[in-house]
Amino acid sequence: MTLTKEIKDKKVNFEFNKELINIFNSKIKDNDAEFLNKNLKELHPADSADIIENLTSENRSKLIELEGFNLVPEIFIELNESIQEEIFIVLSVDSIVNILKRLESDNALKILQNLNDDKKNIVLLKLPPKDRFILQEGLLYPEDSAARIMQREFAAIPSNWFVGQTIDYLRENKDLPEEFLEVFIVDNNFKPIGTVQSSKVLTAPRDSKMNSLMNETQVLIPVDMDKEEVGRIFENYNLVSAGVVNKENKLVGMITGDDVFTILQDEAEEDVLRLAGVGDEEITDSVFKKTKRRFNWLLLNLFTALLATWVISKFGASIEQMVALAFLMPIVASMGGNAGMQTLAVTIRALATKELSSGNFSKVIIKEFIIGIFNGLIFAVITGVIVQLWFKEINLSILIAVSMILNMMVAGLFGILVPVSLKRFNIDPAIASSVFVTTITDVIGFLSFLGLGTYFFYG
Amino acid sequence: MTLTKEIKDKKVNFEFNKELINIFNSKIKDNDAEFLNKNLKELHPADSADIIENLTSENRSKLIELEGFNLVPEIFIELNESIQEEIFIVLSVDSIVNILKRLESDNALKILQNLNDDKKNIVLLKLPPKDRFILQEGLLYPEDSAARIMQREFAAIPSNWFVGQTIDYLRENKDLPEEFLEVFIVDNNFKPIGTVQSSKVLTAPRDSKMNSLMNETQVLIPVDMDKEEVGRIFENYNLVSAGVVNKENKLVGMITGDDVFTILQDEAEEDVLRLAGVGDEEITDSVFKKTKRRFNWLLLNLFTALLATWVISKFGASIEQMVALAFLMPIVASMGGNAGMQTLAVTIRALATKELSSGNFSKVIIKEFIIGIFNGLIFAVITGVIVQLWFKEINLSILIAVSMILNMMVAGLFGILVPVSLKRFNIDPAIASSVFVTTITDVIGFLSFLGLGTYFFYG
Repeated sequence: MTLTKEIKDKKVNFEFNKELINIFNSKIKDNDAEFLNKNLKELHPADSADIIENLTSENRSKLIELEGFNLVPEIFIELNESIQEEIFIVLSVDSIVNILKRLESDNALKILQNLNDDKKNIVLLKLPPKDRFILQEGLLYPEDSAARIMQREFAAIPSNWFVGQTIDYLRENKDLPEEFLEVFIVDNNFKPIGTVQSSKVLTAPRDSKMNSLMNETQVLIPVDMDKEEVGRIFENYNLVSAGVVNKENKLVGMITGDDVFTILQDEAEEDVLRLAGVGDEEITDSVFKKTKRRFNWLLLNLFTALLATWVISKFGASIEQMVALAFLMPIVASMGGNAGMQTLAVTIRALATKELSSGNFSKVIIKEFIIGIFNGLIFAVITGVIVQLWFKEINLSILIAVSMILNMMVAGLFGILVPVSLKRFNIDPAIASSVFVTTITDVIGFLSFLGLGTYFFYG
Repeated sequence: MTLTKEIKDKKVNFEFNKELINIFNSKIKDNDAEFLNKNLKELHPADSADIIENLTSENRSKLIELEGFNLVPEIFIELNESIQEEIFIVLSVDSIVNILKRLESDNALKILQNLNDDKKNIVLLKLPPKDRFILQEGLLYPEDSAARIMQREFAAIPSNWFVGQTIDYLRENKDLPEEFLEVFIVDNNFKPIGTVQSSKVLTAPRDSKMNSLMNETQVLIPVDMDKEEVGRIFENYNLVSAGVVNKENKLVGMITGDDVFTILQDEAEEDVLRLAGVGDEEITDSVFKKTKRRFNWLLLNLFTALLATWVISKFGASIEQMVALAFLMPIVASMGGNAGMQTLAVTIRALATKELSSGNFSKVIIKEFIIGIFNGLIFAVITGVIVQLWFKEINLSILIAVSMILNMMVAGLFGILVPVSLKRFNIDPAIASSVFVTTITDVIGFLSFLGLGTYFFYG
């Protein structure tokens, strides 16, 4: 490593700190292209991207426009989408073309798909025909398909070859990817019949038959498979690499584990953010973008809150007669909401990892219902006792206990039924479920507590 | 593949269905060890584990006890922890010893660490001394450290070797792991100075120097690093394999990408479940276990709800004077709670992926505060107008608008301050944050709405 010493000292344990960012900010102000070139080139592209993301946005544009300065192309694919957008507005079409030419096809595709349509078309026209063809073909597949993350270069040999023959071929062939984790064995129709790990080719004698080393139980990815499903398969089968096949079962590409980490991470992260009603927000997004993204969710929540208000308003007379109803009613709604969210979170993860399927569905539903009853009973007793001690009014205590049981049962049931039903209608359960579930538990919470109270005691 | 045809037909697109499970359930009832042996051996261990997880628990014990039946050891490491526990209670110590002997060190360790202490010690005593030593050494490291997931077998050579020499050595050496993605180049002190991908060794001429193919900017994992941090590093640097070094910087093992998928998935999943107050629940856990896990969270929530009740009860006189206060008060609390959870979810993911650091902390806080003000203003207007149209009482409309702005600002601020502070005290922010934040937004919501109402209009 030939990093400048002041940078090397600051970069400890894969952590970045403010001081480090400040050095870069000040070197940009000084137009020190030599320093910037040297260090951003020597650092891992992921680290350089981290630094660029944390510069002030003014210095970021200055860095890009600096004379005699060229970013390593791999840095771009490591940048957040919002920062990529910001930079590609400043960059000339020729610079973008140059970056794309120097990237592998899967990475070039990742950048290209983030450009707006006008810029995308001009850039495509300026690319060499061979690159353009590959990228245009990739763009034909859906944005979330395996085709968008696969590499189109791979190593494949016929099944009757020997190890020695294979090594000689690999040494001579210049069209191979720079790195590959396995060699595919294909039949006459280019249909993959097995794979041999690169390390197995290395350790076997030259006169071994390749198909004797072959792993037959290979997992093949259809080219149009959703990339989240690809991630799930890599995780489930502990893969580091897998072949991609087209509709005719011909080998057309390969996907390696490093492409999948980000997908797996993003997918699970999506669930956290969607459950909280944020969507695909990134920390670098602008205030305006963030406010807009969160607005819809809050608006939806306002209407469900107004629905609860409307339910409560029907029982105004009872509240005026017994004001403690107003003190206690949020408890029932809130406990139901929390129990519902617990069931919901478990269900959504089980659906995402396919642990919940038609095979165990009814068993799981019954379980959740029983948990609802158990927790309902336990908290009915606890809450009933507390309310009795506090308000010394037995009717109120019975009332809150009964409506607690009811709402906890409802919470358990709908916590699982809502996401499963949404999934059946092909709606992402993580996005819409929590509004439904909390609306149901709010309404049932207020309705059962105030309704039963009005009917039996304070009507 | 030599799967029984009825199984092969049912297994389409990596999906399991009820029919498939039923076939296995009925073959177990028929004591058809031959069928079971054949198919559970031919399926991918991950698929076999899925089937076993979905059997009735009675049939699962029967399967394990079936005469002449032996599960492939790799199946065990693919099983959920709760199912592993269930099975290892039934299995004899000798069977467990046999399974461990046939597994690689990292996988054997995974099983061993899930046994109870008594069984663990007896099993260790019955293992051959070499295996026992390796496993005991592994157990010395913390449960979540890199040492627990690394393989102790790897390929390493000195820096002055040629490609041909390396290949000859790899062919002759019988102590190598079955598969390795890269060859480590080490100095005289066994300190790694670079790596060469296996495929690069394959494609280079025999007379190339290994160090000319070497990748110097390697990422090395300290043996005691937390495994979640290992996962983050693999994701950040797009690794498929990395060396593990001890305190003296000597190479002691390697970690491959397939070991990391599960860690990354689990970690993000943990955040979803913890935010919802469920902890590390699995879908196969028993009703009793699930009820117990969720109980603590609900109890905590009950006390925060009682706190809100106490706040409301201080304003009983105002509610009796103006009952619409009771109808509207949940709106302010609920909007604050939702806005707080949005900020919280973004913050927790940013902390987990280290996108939020001391370098950008104050910038991000200010952003959230501004978003809180923006959304507060927007929803103050919307809610104020709706309330005016509904109740035609200007004081009520002003009141709800002002308390809405207040609570949304509080939500944005505490949605970021709470998790960051918890993290600073080394408490997992995903576990505890949401209780704090919703308690704060509930209390401030009720307090500002009822308090301001009492002070200015209905006191």
